[in-house]
Amino acid sequence: MFDVSDRAKEYQERLLSFMDEHVYPAEAVYEAQMRESGDPHFHPPVLEELKAEARKQGLWNLFHPDPRWGPGLTNLEYAMLAETMGRSAHLAPEATNCNAPDTGNMEVLTLFGTEEHKEKWLKPLLAGEIASAFAMTEPAVASSDARNIEMRMVRDGDDYVLNGRKWWTSNALHKNCRVLIVMGKTDPDGPSHRQQSMMVVPLDTPGVTLLRNLPVFGYQDREGHAEVLFEDVRVPHTALLAGEGDGFMISQARLGPGRIHHCMRSIGMAERALDLLIDRAQSRTTFGAPLSERANIQDWIAEARIEIDMARLLTLKAAHLMDTVGNKQARTEIAAIKVAAPEVALKVVDRAIQVHGGAGVCDDFPLASMYAHLRTLRLADGPDEVHKRTIALRELRRRETERNAR
Amino acid sequence: MFDVSDRAKEYQERLLSFMDEHVYPAEAVYEAQMRESGDPHFHPPVLEELKAEARKQGLWNLFHPDPRWGPGLTNLEYAMLAETMGRSAHLAPEATNCNAPDTGNMEVLTLFGTEEHKEKWLKPLLAGEIASAFAMTEPAVASSDARNIEMRMVRDGDDYVLNGRKWWTSNALHKNCRVLIVMGKTDPDGPSHRQQSMMVVPLDTPGVTLLRNLPVFGYQDREGHAEVLFEDVRVPHTALLAGEGDGFMISQARLGPGRIHHCMRSIGMAERALDLLIDRAQSRTTFGAPLSERANIQDWIAEARIEIDMARLLTLKAAHLMDTVGNKQARTEIAAIKVAAPEVALKVVDRAIQVHGGAGVCDDFPLASMYAHLRTLRLADGPDEVHKRTIALRELRRRETERNAR
Amino acid sequence: MFDVSDRAKEYQERLLSFMDEHVYPAEAVYEAQMRESGDPHFHPPVLEELKAEARKQGLWNLFHPDPRWGPGLTNLEYAMLAETMGRSAHLAPEATNCNAPDTGNMEVLTLFGTEEHKEKWLKPLLAGEIASAFAMTEPAVASSDARNIEMRMVRDGDDYVLNGRKWWTSNALHKNCRVLIVMGKTDPDGPSHRQQSMMVVPLDTPGVTLLRNLPVFGYQDREGHAEVLFEDVRVPHTALLAGEGDGFMISQARLGPGRIHHCMRSIGMAERALDLLIDRAQSRTTFGAPLSERANIQDWIAEARIEIDMARLLTLKAAHLMDTVGNKQARTEIAAIKVAAPEVALKVVDRAIQVHGGAGVCDDFPLASMYAHLRTLRLADGPDEVHKRTIALRELRRRETERNAR
Amino acid sequence: MFDVSDRAKEYQERLLSFMDEHVYPAEAVYEAQMRESGDPHFHPPVLEELKAEARKQGLWNLFHPDPRWGPGLTNLEYAMLAETMGRSAHLAPEATNCNAPDTGNMEVLTLFGTEEHKEKWLKPLLAGEIASAFAMTEPAVASSDARNIEMRMVRDGDDYVLNGRKWWTSNALHKNCRVLIVMGKTDPDGPSHRQQSMMVVPLDTPGVTLLRNLPVFGYQDREGHAEVLFEDVRVPHTALLAGEGDGFMISQARLGPGRIHHCMRSIGMAERALDLLIDRAQSRTTFGAPLSERANIQDWIAEARIEIDMARLLTLKAAHLMDTVGNKQARTEIAAIKVAAPEVALKVVDRAIQVHGGAGVCDDFPLASMYAHLRTLRLADGPDEVHKRTIALRELRRRETERNAR
Repeated sequence: MFDVSDRAKEYQERLLSFMDEHVYPAEAVYEAQMRESGDPHFHPPVLEELKAEARKQGLWNLFHPDPRWGPGLTNLEYAMLAETMGRSAHLAPEATNCNAPDTGNMEVLTLFGTEEHKEKWLKPLLAGEIASAFAMTEPAVASSDARNIEMRMVRDGDDYVLNGRKWWTSNALHKNCRVLIVMGKTDPDGPSHRQQSMMVVPLDTPGVTLLRNLPVFGYQDREGHAEVLFEDVRVPHTALLAGEGDGFMISQARLGPGRIHHCMRSIGMAERALDLLIDRAQSRTTFGAPLSERANIQDWIAEARIEIDMARLLTLKAAHLMDTVGNKQARTEIAAIKVAAPEVALKVVDRAIQVHGGAGVCDDFPLASMYAHLRTLRLADGPDEVHKRTIALRELRRRETERNAR
Repeated sequence: MFDVSDRAKEYQERLLSFMDEHVYPAEAVYEAQMRESGDPHFHPPVLEELKAEARKQGLWNLFHPDPRWGPGLTNLEYAMLAETMGRSAHLAPEATNCNAPDTGNMEVLTLFGTEEHKEKWLKPLLAGEIASAFAMTEPAVASSDARNIEMRMVRDGDDYVLNGRKWWTSNALHKNCRVLIVMGKTDPDGPSHRQQSMMVVPLDTPGVTLLRNLPVFGYQDREGHAEVLFEDVRVPHTALLAGEGDGFMISQARLGPGRIHHCMRSIGMAERALDLLIDRAQSRTTFGAPLSERANIQDWIAEARIEIDMARLLTLKAAHLMDTVGNKQARTEIAAIKVAAPEVALKVVDRAIQVHGGAGVCDDFPLASMYAHLRTLRLADGPDEVHKRTIALRELRRRETERNAR
Repeated sequence: MFDVSDRAKEYQERLLSFMDEHVYPAEAVYEAQMRESGDPHFHPPVLEELKAEARKQGLWNLFHPDPRWGPGLTNLEYAMLAETMGRSAHLAPEATNCNAPDTGNMEVLTLFGTEEHKEKWLKPLLAGEIASAFAMTEPAVASSDARNIEMRMVRDGDDYVLNGRKWWTSNALHKNCRVLIVMGKTDPDGPSHRQQSMMVVPLDTPGVTLLRNLPVFGYQDREGHAEVLFEDVRVPHTALLAGEGDGFMISQARLGPGRIHHCMRSIGMAERALDLLIDRAQSRTTFGAPLSERANIQDWIAEARIEIDMARLLTLKAAHLMDTVGNKQARTEIAAIKVAAPEVALKVVDRAIQVHGGAGVCDDFPLASMYAHLRTLRLADGPDEVHKRTIALRELRRRETERNAR
Repeated sequence: MFDVSDRAKEYQERLLSFMDEHVYPAEAVYEAQMRESGDPHFHPPVLEELKAEARKQGLWNLFHPDPRWGPGLTNLEYAMLAETMGRSAHLAPEATNCNAPDTGNMEVLTLFGTEEHKEKWLKPLLAGEIASAFAMTEPAVASSDARNIEMRMVRDGDDYVLNGRKWWTSNALHKNCRVLIVMGKTDPDGPSHRQQSMMVVPLDTPGVTLLRNLPVFGYQDREGHAEVLFEDVRVPHTALLAGEGDGFMISQARLGPGRIHHCMRSIGMAERALDLLIDRAQSRTTFGAPLSERANIQDWIAEARIEIDMARLLTLKAAHLMDTVGNKQARTEIAAIKVAAPEVALKVVDRAIQVHGGAGVCDDFPLASMYAHLRTLRLADGPDEVHKRTIALRELRRRETERNAR
C-alpha cells in the first residue's frame, strides 16, 4: 500500500531468502552452542558465520540512513526489513549488524561524533567488530522524567569527571562491547532541556564498574543489561558528543528511528507467535476436535490478525512521516506506536502461550522469552503512561487551537 | 500517507468547507424541526436545503464509482470523505446523496439493473428525489448464515410470488422511500451459493406491509427500520436483478464498498466524540482541577487517538486493496474493519459519555445516539463473530499452505 | 453462605412465588398498557393490581429497616430480595413499594423528618399512595464534587427562598409524584461539609417548574428524569430536614442502603440477561450448530457466571458490614460495589445483545433498555472515577499506616 | 463475614506473627543463601530453621483436614491462612509443611494409601523430612483431556510395569524429594472414567529418569519441574492407590482443596504486589508529583482492591461450599476460582511491574517471579478454557432444567 522503491522490495526479497536459508536453520545451532557453553553471555560462533554471510550478500547495516555505510534505505523501507528480522530476534538483527543499541549509537556517532570518535568507534561498529551500549536510565530515580537524572559530568581542566550509577545498560555484557555512550548532567541548574550532555566512554576506563547483570523474568540475556557504577571516571573533553547541553537534543534525534525498529521487530515477533499459535492449535486435540476448530481459539486468531495489521500500519505511517515531514511532526505517532506495538504483540504472545500449555512457559518454544522481552518494551525508554501523556497534551492543545479558530 | 489525487484532495477541502458553512450550523435547525414536527419520521425542510446546496457545489453522489453519476472517486478517495460525513451522520450523508442503503442500492442498480430499473428507480435515486431500502435480514432465523433465509420467491408464469418476513429493513420509513431491493430464495434446494436471488419491489406493491418500526435503544430513527411482511407479493419476472441464483454474488459485490463507508463514518463519529470529550474535560472541574488534567482522562484521550488512527489506517488499506487488487483479495481486510472500526468508535463514545456524566446519556449531546447507532453495526451485516470466523479460517489456510510449502 | 434468619429465607420464597405468579405474567400486560396509552409517563392499572396483591401478601416496604413499616429486614436480608426484584425492574420494585428514590426518601423522612413531614409525606409514601423525587444533581456543574452545587437556599424571615436548577430528578414525572427532597446551600461560605441543607418541597410549590424530561439513550422512562427550575421558591423554615448544614450528613446516611439496592437489582438484571443469552444461544443455529455449542459463546456464559457471582458476593459483604460495623467502616466496599456491579451487569447485557442480533437492540427483549438503565448507574451518584478515587485514597492511607507501624 | 471459629482466628493471628517475626526477615537471608550456593535447586538452611520454628509454634500441617496430623481446620478456615502464606510464597508454605504438591500427596496417601504407604511415605512427609511430586501431565498430548493420557501401567505378575513420559512434575528436583505419585492407564480401553490408576513410585526406582528441569519463563525454580522418563519401571502391585481404575476418582478428590490453596496463595501474592505498587508509587516522582497522586495510578489501586476482594470472596465461598455441601455441589465454584484468582493476581502484578519500571522485571522485587509463577496457574491443572467450558455446560443444563420446569 505504501509506495516503496523497487530497490527496497528487492532487499525485502533478499532478506526473506537469507532468513529461510540461513537464519531459521541456525536457531537450533544457536540454542545448542549457548547451552553447551554454560555461559549466558557467550558469543556463539554461529553468529559470526551468519554475519559473514550477511555481509557477503550485502545485507549489512541495512538500518543506516547514510548511503556510505549501507544501502541508505528510508525509515519506511527499513521498517519492513526490521519486522522480518524480529521473527528471529536473537539472530537476524545482529547477523545483519542492525542490532540495538548499536544502531542508535552508530547513528549518533555518525551525526554528532568527532573524527576521532568515528575512526576509533564508528568504523569498527559499522564493521561489526565491536559492540556498544547506551547508559541513560538510573536506578535511583524515575528516569522517564529526564530532569530526574543524577549522574554528574563535571569539567575539570581538559577533562570531565563522571560520577553516578546507571542500570539497564543493555549490551554492556556482550563479549564484544568496548564503548559506552553516557548521558549525564553537565549543568544541573540550567534550563531543563540544556542540563544534559552525552559522552563517549570506553568500557575499560578506570572507575567504570559493571556491578551485575539484571535478569529479565529470570532470563540472563546474552547481551546483558548491566548496572554500571561510575566513580570519578575521567574522560577527555573530546569525549563530548556535539556540545555541552546537547544531550536532550541528541536523545530526541536517536529516538524516532529506534522506536520504529523496536516496534517493527515486535510486530515480527507477534507474527511468529501467531504462526506458532496456529501450528499448535492445528496439532492438538481435546474433547474430540482440534483446538483450531474451537470458536474461542478462532476469535483469538482473528483478533491477532486484526490487531497486528493495525499496529503495523501505524508504525509504517510513523516511519513515513519521519521520512517526509520529520520527527517533530511525527511526535504523536512516534509516541503512539511505542504504546500500541508492544501491547498488541504481548497479547498475541500471551495467547500463543495459553494454546501451548506448559510448553509455552518453558524454553521449548520462544514464546516465554518473547513475552519477557516485549514486556520490558512497555517500560524501556519511558513507560506507556509517559507516552500517553505526551499524546494527550498534544490532543488537548490541538483542540484548544481548533476552538479558538472558530 | 496514502497517495491520493489532487482532485480528491480538492474534494476533501470543499467538503470540509461545506461542513463548516452549512452542515454544522444546520444541526440545531434539524433538531428543532424534528422536535416541532412531533413525527419521528418527519422529513425536515433543512435537509432539502442542504441537498440543494450540496448539489449546487458539486458535492453530490460522491460515493459513486461511475463517473457518469458523480466525480468517480476511488474507494480510497471516497473513504476520506465518508469519515468527514460521519461527523454529522444525520445530515451530511443524506445532504450529499451518499446515504446508506441508497448508496448500495444505486451501485447494485447500476451494475445489475435493467434499463427499466435504471429509468424508473436509479435515476430518481441519483437525483435524490426518492429513497430506497434493502430487505435481507429475517426475524425468524440467524440471518448471518445466508442459508437460513426463509423468504420464498416462486416463479408463477411471467411473475414471481414472494412470501416471507423481513426486518431491519432500514430506510423503509423514510418519507421518500419508494422501492425495496429484496433478497430471497428462488431455488431453496440448489447449491448453497445459488439458492438466492434479488428483486426490485416497489414499496406500494400489494401484499407488502410495513408492520412496525424497530426502535434502537429507545430511538425511533427518522429513516426507520421496518419489519416488513410479504404476503403473496406478485412482481413481474423483470423484477429480477441479474439472473436467478445471483443473489449471493450481488450481495458480495455490494458488500465491500458499504463496509468502507460504514467504517469511515464510524471513525468520523469517533473523532467527533473525542472532540466532545476533550471540550467537556477542559470545561468541568472537580476537586480543584479540570478533568483534562487528570491522568486517567488523559490516558483515555491518548488511547482514543491511538486506536482511531489505527482503525482508520486499516480501513484505508482495505479501500486501497479494493481499488488495486479487488474485493476478493481484500476479504480479510474487509472483515477486519467491520470488527475493528465499530469497536474502537464505541469505546471512544462510551468514554465521552462517561466524561459528560448525565449530559452524555440524554440528548443534549449526540453521544448516546451515536452509541446506539454504532452498537447496531456490531450486528448488522453479520455479527463480529461471523467476521472473525472468516478471518480465522483464512489464517488457518494460509498457515497450512506455508507449512506444506516447506 | 451468609447466615440469614429463617424469616428472611421465608420472605425470599414468598417473593419468588410472587414473581412467578404475578410479576412475570404481568410484564406483557404492562407493555401493552403502556403502548396503548401513548403516554410514556402513563401509570398503568396493572401496577396498582400488583401493588394490591403484594400488600395483601405482606410483601410491602420490604426495604424499610424500621419494623413499624415493614418486616424490618437487615441490609443483607433485603439485598437478596432486591436482586430478585431486579429481574423485573419495571414492575417488582414498585409493586412492593421498594422503588428508588422513594425508598431513600422514606428512610430520610423516617430518620430526619418532622412530625408534620411524617404525617403529610411519609405515611402516604409508605402506603404507596404518592411518589417522590430527589433533586440534587445540577446541569451547570460537576455535581460529583458536592462543593460545586450552586442551588441557593436563603433564609428570609420564617421562610427559605430557593433558587437554582436541578436535573436528573428521577421520578418527578411519575403520575403520583407529589413531593421533592431538595439539596442546596444554606451556607455557601461555610466549611465544605456544612454548606448544604436538605428541604422538603411539595411539587406544586409556586416557582417549581418541570422544564423537560431527559431521555436515557432514546428512552422516555415512565417515572421520568426531570430538569427542574427553582425560581424564588418559598418554603417555610419547617421544610428543613434535621438542621441547617446537615445536608451532607443526611446524604451520607441515605447513600449506603441505596447503593446496595441499586447493585443488587443490577445483579438481578444480569442474571436475567444471562438466562436470555442462554435461551437464545440454544435456539439459534448457524453453520450447522446451535450457538450454545460454540466455544466463544460458552466462554461468555462462563465469564458471566463467574463475574456475576463475584459482584454479588462483594455486594452482600458490603451489606453485611453495614449491618454489623456501620456505613463508615464499609466505605471502601460501598464505593467498590458501585463500580463493580454495573460494570459486570453491562458486560453480560452487552453480550446478551450480541447473541440476540437485531432482536437485542430493539424492544422485543428488555436487553437494550437494561443496557441504557445500567449505563446511567456508572454516572448517577458519582461517576466510577470518583468512587475509585475514594478507594485509592483509603488504600494509600492504609499502607502508609502499615509502613509507619513497622 | 464468614463465620469462623475462634480457634481459627487464633491460628490466623499466630501465623501473622510468625510471618512478621520469622518469615519476612528470612526472605533476604534466603535470597543470599540461594545466590551463594550457585545451585538453583539448593536447599537453603534458613528453610530448615523456619520449619523448626513453625513446628515448635504448632504452625504445622495447617492444611491437613485430619486432626491427627494438624489442627484439623476446615477448608474455609485454612483458606485464610493460605492467603497469608502466599505473601511469601517461597518460604511460608514450605516452612509450615503446607507446600504443594506435598499437601495433595499427603491428602491422597491419608485417604487412599495402604498402611505401608503411610508408614514409609506419609509419616516422613507429615514430618517434613522428605518431599514428593505428582506426575500427571504429559508432553505429547493435551493432558487437560484426561482421555489423552498415554502412560501405560501394565500388570505383570505381582508387579506393574510403567512406560511413558511425564513433564511438569513439580518438586521432583527438590533435594528432599523421594517419591512420586504417578497417574497412568491400567485399562486404556475401559470406560473413560475408569481407564486411569494412580501409583506410588519411589524416585529411585530403576527406569525412572529425570531428563531435565523445565524453566518457567527464565526461572529455574528451586523445587524444579521435571520432565521424567519412565522406561519399564517395575513396581509391586501394592504401589496402587485405592483400586485399579480409581485414578480419576482420586484426582477429583485431591482437586478441590488444591484449587483453594492455589487460589488463596495467588490472592496473597496479589495483596503483596498491591502493597509494593503503593510503596513505589508513593516514593517516585515525575513531572512534579508522586505517582500516587496521578489518577491513572489511583484507578489501578482501586481496581486492584475491588478485584482482589471479589476473587477472595468467591474462593472463600467455594471453600465454604466444600465444607458444607461437598466438592461435587461446588463444581462451578471450584472451576470459577481457577479462572478468576490467577487472572486478578496477574493483572495486579503486571501493574505493579509497570509502576516499578525496570526494577519490576528484574529480581530486585519479587514481581517478575510472581508473574511467571501465576502465569503457569492459568495452564496448570487445565487451561482456563477447559474450566470455562465446564461452567458453561453446567449453566446450559441449569437453564434447560428451568425451562422444562415451566
